[in-house]
Amino acid sequence: MNRRNWLKNIALASGTISLQSFTLTPEMAERWTGKRVLFQGDSITDAGRDRELSEPNHPRALGGGYAFHTAANLLRTNIPFELEVFNRGISGNKVFQLQERWQEDCLDLEPDLLSILIGVNDFWHSKSHEYEGTVETYENDYRRLLERTLEARPSIAIMIGEPFLVEGGTALQEGWEEEFSAYREAALKLAREFNTGFVPYQSYFDKALVDAPVSYWCPDGVHPSIPGAVVMAEAWLETFKFM
Amino acid sequence: MNRRNWLKNIALASGTISLQSFTLTPEMAERWTGKRVLFQGDSITDAGRDRELSEPNHPRALGGGYAFHTAANLLRTNIPFELEVFNRGISGNKVFQLQERWQEDCLDLEPDLLSILIGVNDFWHSKSHEYEGTVETYENDYRRLLERTLEARPSIAIMIGEPFLVEGGTALQEGWEEEFSAYREAALKLAREFNTGFVPYQSYFDKALVDAPVSYWCPDGVHPSIPGAVVMAEAWLETFKFM
Repeated sequence: MNRRNWLKNIALASGTISLQSFTLTPEMAERWTGKRVLFQGDSITDAGRDRELSEPNHPRALGGGYAFHTAANLLRTNIPFELEVFNRGISGNKVFQLQERWQEDCLDLEPDLLSILIGVNDFWHSKSHEYEGTVETYENDYRRLLERTLEARPSIAIMIGEPFLVEGGTALQEGWEEEFSAYREAALKLAREFNTGFVPYQSYFDKALVDAPVSYWCPDGVHPSIPGAVVMAEAWLETFKFM
Repeated sequence: MNRRNWLKNIALASGTISLQSFTLTPEMAERWTGKRVLFQGDSITDAGRDRELSEPNHPRALGGGYAFHTAANLLRTNIPFELEVFNRGISGNKVFQLQERWQEDCLDLEPDLLSILIGVNDFWHSKSHEYEGTVETYENDYRRLLERTLEARPSIAIMIGEPFLVEGGTALQEGWEEEFSAYREAALKLAREFNTGFVPYQSYFDKALVDAPVSYWCPDGVHPSIPGAVVMAEAWLETFKFM
């Protein structure tokens, strides 16, 4: 379909696309009032946040990505359950680097809900940065991180984000998506093993590609645009409903 | 009402509060496809944006305030009308300071829709910074700015934001809200005079105070929190429907 046509089709279909607001049920409100939410991960989570700012619910501390959009929706539509939302994502991180800073950047913050999105660099850097980890390294390191977290905070709720590559992105090479699916499967396997939530980011991006090309959602295939980050927030909020 | 009670009341009422998504009608899509939106103003608009970044639709270039929330909603729900959204707000600005940088930070950008929010510093700095401007200075400077804009770009659409002070904010002093209403009235008068849109931010904050205290929306009475900035985006999008 050429560009002119999909513009037109979308114009006609525009009524079907909408940002879903998400309001806690009274039962969920009871459960989550005054609780701490922590976003952890790599550059997709980091999204240019000001790392000098440590406090919750601050726009610059939350960065410009899905963590910010998620926090904005939660805080606006669930007044005022005193949720505290933190972001401690750091660009370039692989799962072993989360492990290195986990005491300070996770356990010491005493989160009640931990949202993790990690994996794209575990794969990508093995292609381009002489990193020698494999999908087994990723799975084993990730398992240890989850075990450590649950040992320190047995009642914590965890949401594992599906790592994703958006088809056609400029940073991707032939065959990468297929190879990367092993990392996505490892994340899903761990979510089942530890009975955590699982945020299907890849499926959300795959669906979004029906409406607009990769350049609109995630130009390089790894780092979402503004509307791409909103799509991620939608995926997150849908999953949170079951937490 | 004590804190415990309003928490409970809000929990029960939570279904009534929601982020409204906003989708362009086909007619509006036709009108706005490929157009440029420029946010101008002071710290409320600036909201910590990275001033080194000049491109549109970039999270760090849009800051962490209502301009970003508005852009995120527009870009997510109106795919992909190729809107370009810019932010050129600068902290501390009064209307005469917009005038000084108007060529570079407005006219040269060739916006199709200009959203301005200015006025709180014109008042505040006359109280606390030995600034000698009055409400007449504000109105006259603002009028000249609008005349200049329309002369340079006769077909531009303009949205004038109602300057606001949120009752009970920590930076406000006794009697300020009443005195400041003259600035709000001047902004409304200019909106009528030039037949522009008018975004009633003050009314939106006044309504929000029914649901939660000022500390939740705008702690100092001037600078909105994350949920306060989302309320502003809602006000903006409602007004945009009539543009």
